[in-house]
Amino acid sequence: MLYLYAPQDMVRYQHALQQALPQHKVQCWPEEVAVGQVDYAVVWNPPAGFFNGMVNLQAVFVLGAGVDRILKRDDLPSTVPIVRLTDAGMAQQMLEYVLYGVLHVQRQMGQYRRQQTLRQWQALTALSAGQTRIGVLGLGEIGGWVAQSLAAMGYAVAGWSRTGRQLPGVQDYIGEAALPDLLARSDILVNLLPATPQTRGLLNAYLLSRLPSGAALINAGRGEQVDEAALLGLLDSGHLRFAMLDVFEVEPLETVHPLWSHPSVLLTPHIAAMTQVQPAVAQISANLQAIKQGQLPHGLVERERGY
Amino acid sequence: MLYLYAPQDMVRYQHALQQALPQHKVQCWPEEVAVGQVDYAVVWNPPAGFFNGMVNLQAVFVLGAGVDRILKRDDLPSTVPIVRLTDAGMAQQMLEYVLYGVLHVQRQMGQYRRQQTLRQWQALTALSAGQTRIGVLGLGEIGGWVAQSLAAMGYAVAGWSRTGRQLPGVQDYIGEAALPDLLARSDILVNLLPATPQTRGLLNAYLLSRLPSGAALINAGRGEQVDEAALLGLLDSGHLRFAMLDVFEVEPLETVHPLWSHPSVLLTPHIAAMTQVQPAVAQISANLQAIKQGQLPHGLVERERGY
Repeated sequence: MLYLYAPQDMVRYQHALQQALPQHKVQCWPEEVAVGQVDYAVVWNPPAGFFNGMVNLQAVFVLGAGVDRILKRDDLPSTVPIVRLTDAGMAQQMLEYVLYGVLHVQRQMGQYRRQQTLRQWQALTALSAGQTRIGVLGLGEIGGWVAQSLAAMGYAVAGWSRTGRQLPGVQDYIGEAALPDLLARSDILVNLLPATPQTRGLLNAYLLSRLPSGAALINAGRGEQVDEAALLGLLDSGHLRFAMLDVFEVEPLETVHPLWSHPSVLLTPHIAAMTQVQPAVAQISANLQAIKQGQLPHGLVERERGY
Repeated sequence: MLYLYAPQDMVRYQHALQQALPQHKVQCWPEEVAVGQVDYAVVWNPPAGFFNGMVNLQAVFVLGAGVDRILKRDDLPSTVPIVRLTDAGMAQQMLEYVLYGVLHVQRQMGQYRRQQTLRQWQALTALSAGQTRIGVLGLGEIGGWVAQSLAAMGYAVAGWSRTGRQLPGVQDYIGEAALPDLLARSDILVNLLPATPQTRGLLNAYLLSRLPSGAALINAGRGEQVDEAALLGLLDSGHLRFAMLDVFEVEPLETVHPLWSHPSVLLTPHIAAMTQVQPAVAQISANLQAIKQGQLPHGLVERERGY
């Protein structure tokens, strides 16, 4: 039996999963089920105690790319394989989100918006794509796709990852020691890192101030990776001129948080890349079949690595 | 002798032209010159009477893609060939501009901006690229590049032109009779038509109201092609939900114009695609050499067609 918990679109997921996996009965939280008979769980941030008693659980499929929250749980034995989504339509959405932020900065759309409110007709100097240096942190399936697509559009892209990754048109920066150099050459820093103990708090005041004066930050990775107080300080001083933020240390962002009203901040409620039902279910059912045939699923999480 | 008039970057154009064409003396307006000895003119909107007395003029090179203004002049004999820029870095800039508007609509960035001012944390349903139907009016070098690039990014693109143009991934709509159909299937209408007598006033109240309810308009063609009063009416009624406008019936846009402060309008001062010195000069010097060798230059304007 497959047990499902999805905070949104639960019924659509149930129907799609049942259709893709007719040999499994798909049941939804909070239906009462015999927990000992749950073979597979498909979840996004289920309530505490959700996994209690699931002694026959063969695998957990996470309805997203980030597994930081599920790895912290105490109701899930460390022997149960966790499988995350590796793209499922999210890379394209992430590219769209990042591209909007890049164009907003490169084409000075914030300044034009201010001029519009003042009824000022004034052309501004724009950098070409080739003059716009973008640094992408995280070169997994999503970050790699974003970096490579921006490079194909003519931007000067460098990418940073733990172990390096050769991508067409993307300058490769490898390991922690190379991070300050990548920041120093990035007019726009795009954070797409996975949430791991190593990336937590990574973008602190010291590193953020390595960005060139007038640089911009796009954060669609995880909120915990950026020191929000340091970011606010650098935006206030003008060292950073713009931040587009989709993720925050605490979500939903607290109503009193100063980021809401900062004039240099564009803020979205964790929507950069949303899981889509059809591609997610296709990936989960393919992975479930793989596991049943004794193969490794795509997106199997290495717990010690954190993704 | 080559005589130059550029409203911006005159000195940079002079140096670049002189370097590219060492056998020609390059002089700038308002230097006094023997007008009878001007062989070539390189101009963008020169003052009235600029061409008076240029009896030996071999060709006029326009520092832009649009030639509507120069075709209306009474100081330029109709026998002098006019050569316009056909890309010169403008297609890429136009793609950037249009893409920003497309992403703004598709990813509901205007609504997120409003939510931010209200400190509302609320995810909205987003259409995928494939669900977003874009109609591009004008499939010349710029419009064709934009249509084809959007199609390559996964958008559902249809293109409209006078004579048709097969472009990969772009549905082809041909001729005036097909225009209402193209509009009826366009969630986002992108106007990139050249300014000609035929396109003047084309997007009137009747045609604009053929767009589906909730559609958006991006106009980076010419202001005279869109009935601004009709557009304002459709924005006020909510039939159109957004307009991104770079061009206007009168430029600079009059300070009292209601478009400046309309909540559904994003407005820029004719900056979507600005001529860049280096590619423009490279194209002009290549075309000048072609003319001297008796070949047809790229971008030779057909006066009766208007581009």
